[in-house]
Amino acid sequence: MAKPTVDFWYEFASTYSYPAAFRVEAVAARFGVAVRWRVFALGPLFKAEGLPADSPFNWQAAKGRYMWRDVARLCADLDLAFAPPDPFPQPSLLAARVALLGEDAGWDAAFAKAVFAAEFADGAPIGERGVIAGILTDLGLDADAILEAATSADNKARLRTVTGEAHGLGIFGAPDFVTPDGELFWGNDRMEAAFRWALAHAERVPGGAPGG
Amino acid sequence: MAKPTVDFWYEFASTYSYPAAFRVEAVAARFGVAVRWRVFALGPLFKAEGLPADSPFNWQAAKGRYMWRDVARLCADLDLAFAPPDPFPQPSLLAARVALLGEDAGWDAAFAKAVFAAEFADGAPIGERGVIAGILTDLGLDADAILEAATSADNKARLRTVTGEAHGLGIFGAPDFVTPDGELFWGNDRMEAAFRWALAHAERVPGGAPGG
Repeated sequence: MAKPTVDFWYEFASTYSYPAAFRVEAVAARFGVAVRWRVFALGPLFKAEGLPADSPFNWQAAKGRYMWRDVARLCADLDLAFAPPDPFPQPSLLAARVALLGEDAGWDAAFAKAVFAAEFADGAPIGERGVIAGILTDLGLDADAILEAATSADNKARLRTVTGEAHGLGIFGAPDFVTPDGELFWGNDRMEAAFRWALAHAERVPGGAPGG
Repeated sequence: MAKPTVDFWYEFASTYSYPAAFRVEAVAARFGVAVRWRVFALGPLFKAEGLPADSPFNWQAAKGRYMWRDVARLCADLDLAFAPPDPFPQPSLLAARVALLGEDAGWDAAFAKAVFAAEFADGAPIGERGVIAGILTDLGLDADAILEAATSADNKARLRTVTGEAHGLGIFGAPDFVTPDGELFWGNDRMEAAFRWALAHAERVPGGAPGG
């Protein structure tokens, strides 16, 4: 049976996407599923729900206070440094546009984790071109060429298309996990349930290598 | 060390409170914690957050569609019958006022589970006095006397006071778990984390019986 691939949908401004990004690979390996990282933009989906463009954690005060405490607890359990970004949410479009290019080239997960760490552990302003350039350079990549391609009209349109795909899947928050049969699981805390679902509903692929 | 007591805050209109109510006792027994059932009214807390009085699952369409699927999956995993109530949310104040009296008399958990099953498995209109009377009678209780006391001005004020207590604890949704040191955990999916927290942060009670 081929290893099922679960899509991990994340948004750089999303607090719960941070611990999810730092545990998804280990948890997937433990379950024996493959993960495809899928960056998207959450703002347009808030708008589609008729919500303010700002984070719900800002315009719902008690929920916001709870979220900061909850994410701090989750990160402590994972031995993951955590400091709330200021301001929150951070502008995430530039990083998302760059991550799309990384999906093609295979450095998206490494880039995404570096951006999340810069944002949620180191307090870096990830909306700034210089911060993203520094992360790309640290990964041994050509920052100038990537940033030029990332901010092209074509690539901006690509992020809109991908975000429309997320909307079509029923996504309204982040992070999410979508199984090969299209089942949606919302939240860092549903990662394991999504992987279990993917394994329980995996189709047998004729000629597929066992566990392959 | 005395067994720590975790407060389980629930609201009869809350979909996720249903599976939580039906698993909380077994999970608490497994962890070795005690549970105190605490009914409250969620509507006033939505209002305090500046939200519409209606369920967020009604005015956020994609989130609502997801919730129905998610709760159906959770109930299937628990072998718990589930059918979305119509209309949703059901009027929950009468049941909440009755449950408060059950907290004093010790039949609150049995009553709450019966109400949740009537609402989310059997499609009963739990806002109707006759439905609640039937549940009380089935429990061997004096339905008329209890309903009279439940709808007294004093008991209505008590529900408002308790809901204010929930607000003061930081509660904004349901269900919730609050540990003896005041730590808030929101959601059926945080039950285990709350119990782990309560055990890890339990104070040693001088003279307390081991595990007692």
